[in-house]
Amino acid sequence: MKLNFSLRLRVFNLNCWDIPYLSKHRADRMKRLGDFLNLENFDLALLEEVWSEQDFQYLRQRLSLTYPDAHYFRSGMIGSGLCVFSKHPIQEIFQHVYSLNGYPYMFHHGDWFCGKSVGLLVLRLSGLVLNAYVTHLHAEYSRQKDIYFAHRVAQAWELAQFIHHTSKNADVVLLCGDLNMHPKDLGCCLLKEWTGLHDAFVETEDFKGSDDGCTMVPKNCYVSQQDLGPFPSGIRIDYVLYKAVSEFHVCCETLKTTTGCDPHSDKPFSDHEALMATLYVKHSPPQEDPCTACGPLERSDLISVLREARTELGLGIAKARWWAAFSGYVIVWGLSLLVLLCVLAAGEEAREVAIILCIPSVGLVLVAGAVYLFHKQEAKGLCRAQAEMLHVLTRETETQDRGSEPHLAYCLQQGGDRA
Amino acid sequence: MKLNFSLRLRVFNLNCWDIPYLSKHRADRMKRLGDFLNLENFDLALLEEVWSEQDFQYLRQRLSLTYPDAHYFRSGMIGSGLCVFSKHPIQEIFQHVYSLNGYPYMFHHGDWFCGKSVGLLVLRLSGLVLNAYVTHLHAEYSRQKDIYFAHRVAQAWELAQFIHHTSKNADVVLLCGDLNMHPKDLGCCLLKEWTGLHDAFVETEDFKGSDDGCTMVPKNCYVSQQDLGPFPSGIRIDYVLYKAVSEFHVCCETLKTTTGCDPHSDKPFSDHEALMATLYVKHSPPQEDPCTACGPLERSDLISVLREARTELGLGIAKARWWAAFSGYVIVWGLSLLVLLCVLAAGEEAREVAIILCIPSVGLVLVAGAVYLFHKQEAKGLCRAQAEMLHVLTRETETQDRGSEPHLAYCLQQGGDRA
Repeated sequence: MKLNFSLRLRVFNLNCWDIPYLSKHRADRMKRLGDFLNLENFDLALLEEVWSEQDFQYLRQRLSLTYPDAHYFRSGMIGSGLCVFSKHPIQEIFQHVYSLNGYPYMFHHGDWFCGKSVGLLVLRLSGLVLNAYVTHLHAEYSRQKDIYFAHRVAQAWELAQFIHHTSKNADVVLLCGDLNMHPKDLGCCLLKEWTGLHDAFVETEDFKGSDDGCTMVPKNCYVSQQDLGPFPSGIRIDYVLYKAVSEFHVCCETLKTTTGCDPHSDKPFSDHEALMATLYVKHSPPQEDPCTACGPLERSDLISVLREARTELGLGIAKARWWAAFSGYVIVWGLSLLVLLCVLAAGEEAREVAIILCIPSVGLVLVAGAVYLFHKQEAKGLCRAQAEMLHVLTRETETQDRGSEPHLAYCLQQGGDRA
Repeated sequence: MKLNFSLRLRVFNLNCWDIPYLSKHRADRMKRLGDFLNLENFDLALLEEVWSEQDFQYLRQRLSLTYPDAHYFRSGMIGSGLCVFSKHPIQEIFQHVYSLNGYPYMFHHGDWFCGKSVGLLVLRLSGLVLNAYVTHLHAEYSRQKDIYFAHRVAQAWELAQFIHHTSKNADVVLLCGDLNMHPKDLGCCLLKEWTGLHDAFVETEDFKGSDDGCTMVPKNCYVSQQDLGPFPSGIRIDYVLYKAVSEFHVCCETLKTTTGCDPHSDKPFSDHEALMATLYVKHSPPQEDPCTACGPLERSDLISVLREARTELGLGIAKARWWAAFSGYVIVWGLSLLVLLCVLAAGEEAREVAIILCIPSVGLVLVAGAVYLFHKQEAKGLCRAQAEMLHVLTRETETQDRGSEPHLAYCLQQGGDRA
């Protein structure tokens, strides 16, 4: 790699709100999005909530000249909704489906039926290895009473772990997507602390777009006050995050968002706002300064966020176990009822009533059995994330304990030398 | 890393057949296994089918002095059954649950209820980064009519992709586990071709154990003739696979298997045989010889196995779609029946019969709905693996086409020079 190597990367991200039969003006929005992407000629366009594979194929055809490579990430019953269009050849593709993603009986929310995932693309740009990730986490339907909180924290952890373990050979890491988390939310902090990713909105000096970088704004005609909850001026839940891993430095030169309508008309692309970032990557030999690189301060931030996450997962585990135990009791109760009904059916007196009641009793036992198994699986998934976090926590605490005294001495000595 | 660096790694692998209430002599086998592992003092012991977390905790306690670090991989409703005991500190842990793992209505086989996974451990041994993977794929219940064939191929692909993407920074890669595939099976070839892993049994010059390295043998008192199917002399489905990624060379010095009983008594540890390998790792600067390193021959092997796998997945997709379509018809038929029954219930004549029949009709629609959704998800999972394979195939074919002529010219020239 040349010493004066540099590269500009223009990235587009949008949660497309492309739900067949439910989303408004899908065809028109997809057409306008295609035209815009063709016109802007980004390096990468990463999309979420493209729930219709036909719409992906439509976009693929429409964008084939400007973005010759594309991929649709399939998973779950409905799909992951994730897809990507690239100006550069995609070298490698991989996908990780989150273990936990809501509850099947909350079918009106629908998240469980989608295979919410993280998609990975590996690109080689003039010798630079770029790992680009696209994701969409579980929606937050109520800020006050968020029954999916533990699942979203577990998803954020799984996402962070997936990035951590698959990006070890990358020069630059890029994560775009709808995290369904506000910037200070626990899952968001966990993700940033464990991966070291930087938030383009926080880092850039040239931002143009909606107030506070919000990606769901009241000005957007598809957004209702209910969507924004206790944040009437808007929420920021879609992100462009990045970092340089090896001998590179990356910064966000510019970041733009749409502001309730697409840049060339008065109509929006989606109920979310699009993010458009220009990243500048340059060669930069690694600087070993133990006072700045992963020092005790960063370590203590990670440790504190891991502790908080473990506590929240613990609450989730207790809830999952309560439901498993409750459905276990219902199974026992239902089976006892069935035995009683069989005894009654064998007699003469209430034979017909007993036979009729047998059918809903069998149904009850089956439903309770399914609920039991589901919550057992939920508890196992949460325990798994908690155990992985405990492992990291133990290692980090050990490193902190071992390193804090020599590190402090070194920093003080360096400070003295400089003075 | 020193130029004369070398390291010996002693590894143990066993499918423990530890199923609560079903497996015979569990307590005794676990006790003997604990004693044996303590006595042998391996670097790593990787276990499958430890379905009881209590048994893992028992082993953990029993092995705590010899193997201070351990991890149990939780997932699914029952668990992944995977766990590991390590003499060295485990630096990092990650887990990937396979998207496809059989059918929920085949509850007598039970695989769907387990969260079949691949577990990853990162260890640092005298500066060497070792990525150790442990896994257990879907069982093969019938060799002649294997309804899980496509799922196992998809799992093998997911496993290969997981290893490929998470081991890029590793010096040595080790995979142990019960693959439920014979050495020449499609999934096994796919795994080896895409990851470049070597089979310890094939590579070692010092093998002691059962004939042909079989890991299920008729001599084992827990193995029935039915388990071996058309292979009465035994099958080899458990593996130790390895490779060196960067500036290292690894070879298998010795490989042993148990032969129907544990080495210190006349009773077996499990219905599977244990594998014990000694790997020798040494520093070896990379040798760039385009005639041997990933040449056209290896590429053409990969291309041919990928093509075969895509065909098999295609058959699986067609079957999944057939079931989805069939259950779709049943839903329509059931709903029509329900409408008819409602009409009858509104009248006088067959009111009671109609009301009674309503309940099983609702049940039928619900079950058909679940089957429909399940097979939609199955088709999506298989399509995903197929699309990823197509992507690799396209890249590999392009590379082969671009590289074959200059490569051939280079090899011929080198041959001439040597002559």
